[in-house]
Amino acid sequence: MPGGAGAAASRFAGRSMSWPGQDMEDAGVAAIGGPASAIDTPALLIDHEALSRNIERMAAFGRSAGVAIRPHAKTHKAPPVAHMQIAAGAIGQCAQKVGEAEVLVAGGVGDVLVANEIVGAAKLHRLAALARRARITVAVDHPEAAAALAEAARHHGVTVGVVVDVDVGLGRCGVAPDAALALGRHVAALDGVELRGLQGYHGGIQHVQGYGQRAQAARAATAALETAVAQFRAAGLATAMVTGAGTGTYEVQGRSGLFTELQTGSYIFMDRQYCEIGGKGGEVYDDFEPALFVLATVMSVPAADRVVLDAGYKALSSDAGPALLLGKRGWTYGYGGDEHGIVRGGGDAAPMALGEKVRLQPSHCDTTINLYDRYHVVSGGELIAVWPVAARGKSQ
Amino acid sequence: MPGGAGAAASRFAGRSMSWPGQDMEDAGVAAIGGPASAIDTPALLIDHEALSRNIERMAAFGRSAGVAIRPHAKTHKAPPVAHMQIAAGAIGQCAQKVGEAEVLVAGGVGDVLVANEIVGAAKLHRLAALARRARITVAVDHPEAAAALAEAARHHGVTVGVVVDVDVGLGRCGVAPDAALALGRHVAALDGVELRGLQGYHGGIQHVQGYGQRAQAARAATAALETAVAQFRAAGLATAMVTGAGTGTYEVQGRSGLFTELQTGSYIFMDRQYCEIGGKGGEVYDDFEPALFVLATVMSVPAADRVVLDAGYKALSSDAGPALLLGKRGWTYGYGGDEHGIVRGGGDAAPMALGEKVRLQPSHCDTTINLYDRYHVVSGGELIAVWPVAARGKSQ
Repeated sequence: MPGGAGAAASRFAGRSMSWPGQDMEDAGVAAIGGPASAIDTPALLIDHEALSRNIERMAAFGRSAGVAIRPHAKTHKAPPVAHMQIAAGAIGQCAQKVGEAEVLVAGGVGDVLVANEIVGAAKLHRLAALARRARITVAVDHPEAAAALAEAARHHGVTVGVVVDVDVGLGRCGVAPDAALALGRHVAALDGVELRGLQGYHGGIQHVQGYGQRAQAARAATAALETAVAQFRAAGLATAMVTGAGTGTYEVQGRSGLFTELQTGSYIFMDRQYCEIGGKGGEVYDDFEPALFVLATVMSVPAADRVVLDAGYKALSSDAGPALLLGKRGWTYGYGGDEHGIVRGGGDAAPMALGEKVRLQPSHCDTTINLYDRYHVVSGGELIAVWPVAARGKSQ
Repeated sequence: MPGGAGAAASRFAGRSMSWPGQDMEDAGVAAIGGPASAIDTPALLIDHEALSRNIERMAAFGRSAGVAIRPHAKTHKAPPVAHMQIAAGAIGQCAQKVGEAEVLVAGGVGDVLVANEIVGAAKLHRLAALARRARITVAVDHPEAAAALAEAARHHGVTVGVVVDVDVGLGRCGVAPDAALALGRHVAALDGVELRGLQGYHGGIQHVQGYGQRAQAARAATAALETAVAQFRAAGLATAMVTGAGTGTYEVQGRSGLFTELQTGSYIFMDRQYCEIGGKGGEVYDDFEPALFVLATVMSVPAADRVVLDAGYKALSSDAGPALLLGKRGWTYGYGGDEHGIVRGGGDAAPMALGEKVRLQPSHCDTTINLYDRYHVVSGGELIAVWPVAARGKSQ
């Protein structure tokens, strides 16, 4: 539904990042405090006000629903964003990889859940070493993996927290709900690890189209986890952490009473994919607003109905389809190779000029951010900061 | 045609990277001279022997056809590979971005063609500054862009070479063949730049299925450039460089007599996409052999017919479809999110074990390499070097 995110973009047009001087001549390398229009391209932009509003909205939801927020750093990969979230009340961060957790802890985050299975001695030793400097919890779905983790923890003289990962319908990692209790008992009996509860995350339902259908899927996933949680309680096993949910299901799962914390990630930036899933009010999911953009330059103007941007597969990830070109009614972005985007339009559309800079909304924020070394943070048309994407490429 | 690359993999099985100790316990961080099986995952592997053979094959073709090889560094992004190519006879390198050219020149490459349009004062000044340290040529398709380049070159007191970029059917950048002469005359009249010839690259025909159809498309693209070259000659304009062609068309275009140099890139690694386009001998394109792999670990074994790998969108680019799992007959790789791959199979297939390491052939080498900070170079089952992907993310 290409109209969805287009509508989202116009919905927020009144309060989105202002963009003075867009047509001014490229003035060279952008300076902090200088105009955002001088940022060279392709570049990854954060609208600082929109990011701040998104973080506060999720924090306010957590307070009102009585559920903690543990945002997922796999989206932003940058300690400064983690600290904005923690300042707004988040209890820590999630990560998928040990390398991401290392970046977070080195950046001053004191509580990290590696919401993913970690296998292999090298990674387990790094994880245990990290537990000397921060509170670390990790998802486990196999008794052998739990035993290897416990061994690494004992070797380093630390305690690593464990949540039993339950497959609540995604069909990826995790044990079946009725196998969670046995694994929980196994973990609870190991020295070096501390059973802290359960994880039940369903990535497959985050993008279900339409609020009603998505809410129904979220309730089903919650119900699948509920039995396992009840069995843990009845057996006297820890349920201090019941963790899960994402940007698409945070409200229904957050108000369910089952979860102690939510793992939401993409709400801070809202990519095209999320804007298009539909919300309570209609076809645009507008609980949060777009805050992440790619700035690109028109590098070739070969025809009246076709211009070429300097942003292709290496500037805009393609796993969720093409990005959305903003502010250029009548023109549509498509990939033109690794380094090129082809924008087609014409007809009544105002022509696009050689050297003109344009903004695009990525289709998938996590994988697009992973292509960049730094964010350019913009406020009021000015570049106010450059933040390293410090955990980019930390795939181990 | 999934069978295509599978056939390619088995075709090269006899001489592909040996892989002893694959099932040995993960011994921690891999050391140079240590077993390749100790490399942690996900990791990008080069089979050094296969890479060397591919480089020598293309060099031998160039010698026999009387055409120079100027390999495209957008594939490898690493000066050590550039130097292997130059040692085999390549006359320099291509790059797409100024940032890539900067990495090449800093790494000791003396002759770089930026085979792409460069727009904006910041980049043009960087390019001109680079021309103080190396022979630089750049593609141009617009008189304003040529004038801005010339101005930057004069400012830095250098001469930058120019090839007029001709659209030979791709429909991306470039001028129409019959507009090349006018732009060539414009460039030739500018101070600060030196017209060196023409570029006619058609990315869209590199993956045409079947040798015969691809050869026909290559001849059509060559013919489209031929008229422009003839007009340059008749007008006394430079044709010292007639540059183009890729891994799919190198032979037909290289033997055409029109090109002075070939811009082939992917031949060094041969991704799944290229293996499947078909060759002279049949459905496998085997002029070159697979030399690039991703090593991944089985991180979860939730079901007899499904295991999970630690390699998803952030380890294997998806713009050309899923990667090919090697050596695991009966199992097929699919994406399972940013950090997960789901391998399905079972039936008669031998089970896959928790912690087991497997190799995959990427579907598209350029964009997969762009996800990694380093290559692990393997020879005879040993890790022999770690090479930085120095131009990764150099998208400006």
